[in-house]
Amino acid sequence: MSTHTARVALLGFGTVGRAVAQILTERPPAGVRLTHIFNRNVARKRAGWVSPDVVWTDDVEAVFASDVDVIVELVGGREPAGAWVRRALESGRSVVTANKQLIAHEGRDLLRLASDQRRHLRFEAAVAGGIPVIGAFRDGIAGDRIERIAGILNGTCNYILTSMESAGATFADALARAQELGYAETDPTDDVEGYDARAKLAILCAVGLRVQVAPADIACRPITVVDAVDFQYADQLHCTIRQISQAELDPADPTRVVASVRPSLVPRRSMLARAEGSKNLILARGHYGGDTIYSGSGAGGGPTSVAVVSDLAAIAALEPERPVATPPQPASRVDPEFLTAHYLRFVVKDRPGVLAALATILASHDINIDAVLQQRVHSKDANPFVVTIEPCPPATLATALAEIARLDFHVAPTVDLPILSDGSGA
Amino acid sequence: MSTHTARVALLGFGTVGRAVAQILTERPPAGVRLTHIFNRNVARKRAGWVSPDVVWTDDVEAVFASDVDVIVELVGGREPAGAWVRRALESGRSVVTANKQLIAHEGRDLLRLASDQRRHLRFEAAVAGGIPVIGAFRDGIAGDRIERIAGILNGTCNYILTSMESAGATFADALARAQELGYAETDPTDDVEGYDARAKLAILCAVGLRVQVAPADIACRPITVVDAVDFQYADQLHCTIRQISQAELDPADPTRVVASVRPSLVPRRSMLARAEGSKNLILARGHYGGDTIYSGSGAGGGPTSVAVVSDLAAIAALEPERPVATPPQPASRVDPEFLTAHYLRFVVKDRPGVLAALATILASHDINIDAVLQQRVHSKDANPFVVTIEPCPPATLATALAEIARLDFHVAPTVDLPILSDGSGA
Repeated sequence: MSTHTARVALLGFGTVGRAVAQILTERPPAGVRLTHIFNRNVARKRAGWVSPDVVWTDDVEAVFASDVDVIVELVGGREPAGAWVRRALESGRSVVTANKQLIAHEGRDLLRLASDQRRHLRFEAAVAGGIPVIGAFRDGIAGDRIERIAGILNGTCNYILTSMESAGATFADALARAQELGYAETDPTDDVEGYDARAKLAILCAVGLRVQVAPADIACRPITVVDAVDFQYADQLHCTIRQISQAELDPADPTRVVASVRPSLVPRRSMLARAEGSKNLILARGHYGGDTIYSGSGAGGGPTSVAVVSDLAAIAALEPERPVATPPQPASRVDPEFLTAHYLRFVVKDRPGVLAALATILASHDINIDAVLQQRVHSKDANPFVVTIEPCPPATLATALAEIARLDFHVAPTVDLPILSDGSGA
Repeated sequence: MSTHTARVALLGFGTVGRAVAQILTERPPAGVRLTHIFNRNVARKRAGWVSPDVVWTDDVEAVFASDVDVIVELVGGREPAGAWVRRALESGRSVVTANKQLIAHEGRDLLRLASDQRRHLRFEAAVAGGIPVIGAFRDGIAGDRIERIAGILNGTCNYILTSMESAGATFADALARAQELGYAETDPTDDVEGYDARAKLAILCAVGLRVQVAPADIACRPITVVDAVDFQYADQLHCTIRQISQAELDPADPTRVVASVRPSLVPRRSMLARAEGSKNLILARGHYGGDTIYSGSGAGGGPTSVAVVSDLAAIAALEPERPVATPPQPASRVDPEFLTAHYLRFVVKDRPGVLAALATILASHDINIDAVLQQRVHSKDANPFVVTIEPCPPATLATALAEIARLDFHVAPTVDLPILSDGSGA
């Protein structure tokens, strides 16, 4: 089997470029090798942890003159990024880009160019950062006909709106805080007016609905109109407020699209309401498969670089000489227990000393009780009550539960359920 | 450009087989053609809406003797399905299967066989029905290192537990109802004990964590221990109860896995708690990209068949002569307005007759008021209150709002937000 390696050049070494270089240094996908990094004033950027074999340059001509196979465009903006992407494809290279404006405006022509050149153009990172929604639409549910897309595509707006929701902040205060924390730009126009989200929605329309929509044709309304009082009223309606990007095909004419980006009330129970902070979430409605939902971090170096590197891995895997599938390695050991808090429900004959006996055994194993819950007594003969305990070594808990099982007041076996923390199952 | 077509045989024509045949009849992916359907007693199954060119047979040898390129295995169970899948690969065909037990137990060997034969083995439908989580793990976030997986992988258990949660039902009643509705089998052992979920978790471990785990090595606890009273106590802890399938790599030894399937408390605010009814939900924690979440229907003919057809589309697209990318078609028209209920917030100088004036204009356009909300008066000079209206034609609302804007009591422009229903943004 050949071991052709895709030689990769990064154009742009900002937050995302650095994060891409980090993954390509620490665990490059099979068949992918970082060989060039281009940036203006590259001397200032040079990072010691990158392999010494990598060529650093501030001359883009040096990249085009080299033997790189794939160009990763992380410069952003329409030009010169667009010219570089076209030139890369024209010179027989595949391209990975995170450039939402370029793809939203010129994706159709660039995909055609890539197809003509029999090269790949991938842009998972251009929409919703680390959420692999482009892949899901293009491949994962390609067998369906997607008829509707609704999503939270701008983390800045979501951060502002969820701050207003949870802290009762005014729009101005929430924006100021988002700017302090680096979630919002000094000039937040693109985010707040919906222009950022509509570029992403245009890309999702192209990939998911298979309809090309010019970003400027998507109506936007700013979230600036939303006031703290609107959250109070929304709450009365069992709703909250999110910036929702929506697009839907007309069933009678699937080239006609209804699309908008605007602040909207969404039911508190809905998944859209559950996207908090700077998260993104996308819902797709399929004609055959119903709703699927995708959520995760919409921005940041880590998530965005995962999207870029996954695109690189896919391009390398499409080399004809690559193995079709790599079997996983066998586990050396499989253990059953996670370190979590636990919920212990006892059903006992109610009599003095039951709790003391349980607490004594738990204490003898250094297991800390977090809470004891008891509802009104159901019956003296079969009284269910609950003890929650802090995380402890699984073997210790098992020993303690075995001792407890030998006590004589049980009416039913103890029920032991792990309690997942927000952090361990958000 | 060549127009090679992948000729497809279905083995099995039950619920999923029929749904696959339906999509392949109504909108086959580029380069995919259904040519054979195998089932026992096939005469009983024959469907008039399938193309007359399709060969129906109850002799599997007829399929292997034919020129089909891809075999879709929907028979289920270890044998004879396993023998047929091996034989398909050995005879140089690619395979798509929805068979979780086969892939969980023999996936590693079958993937190796596929790789040796330079053919494809795809099984998106084997886990979480219509949610493209296999593709997400294998491709979408392939650039990350997945360290933890947690999910709701069995719709039957989730239906039972969410019924107990919302209706206060006992386990027995919730199970009986699930059986009545066809969500649970007459013998629910595989679901309730966790055996179904652990096969799926074993597959996710292989694809996501890149570690092969025997299903039998994954500890299971039945959901039968959960009682109605546990939901009451869980509620006091701001939690609910779900059957959670979890697997995590040991950071110190990434061949060691902690894995279990068991009823667990999850915070009510978490995404896991939001998976209701027979839905599935999977969370993956990536070393670089953080958490991503995937949700949708875990079973049923429609969603499962989308997974199968998407796998077929991918195999066809990997034919060397296929176009690399197909540009979308331009939209003929883009409209900005969805038919939804609306939230209208007015800020007015408070004086008699304001509401009457608004209501009169709305009524004159046949717009129905749903609710009027007014909190304690903030100030007589700038009093915000809300009117919600039922869905009406967007142009009608625009006309009414223009008339309302001409009234003289406004202190601020009217804020108009769409209200997404549960159904339109779950």
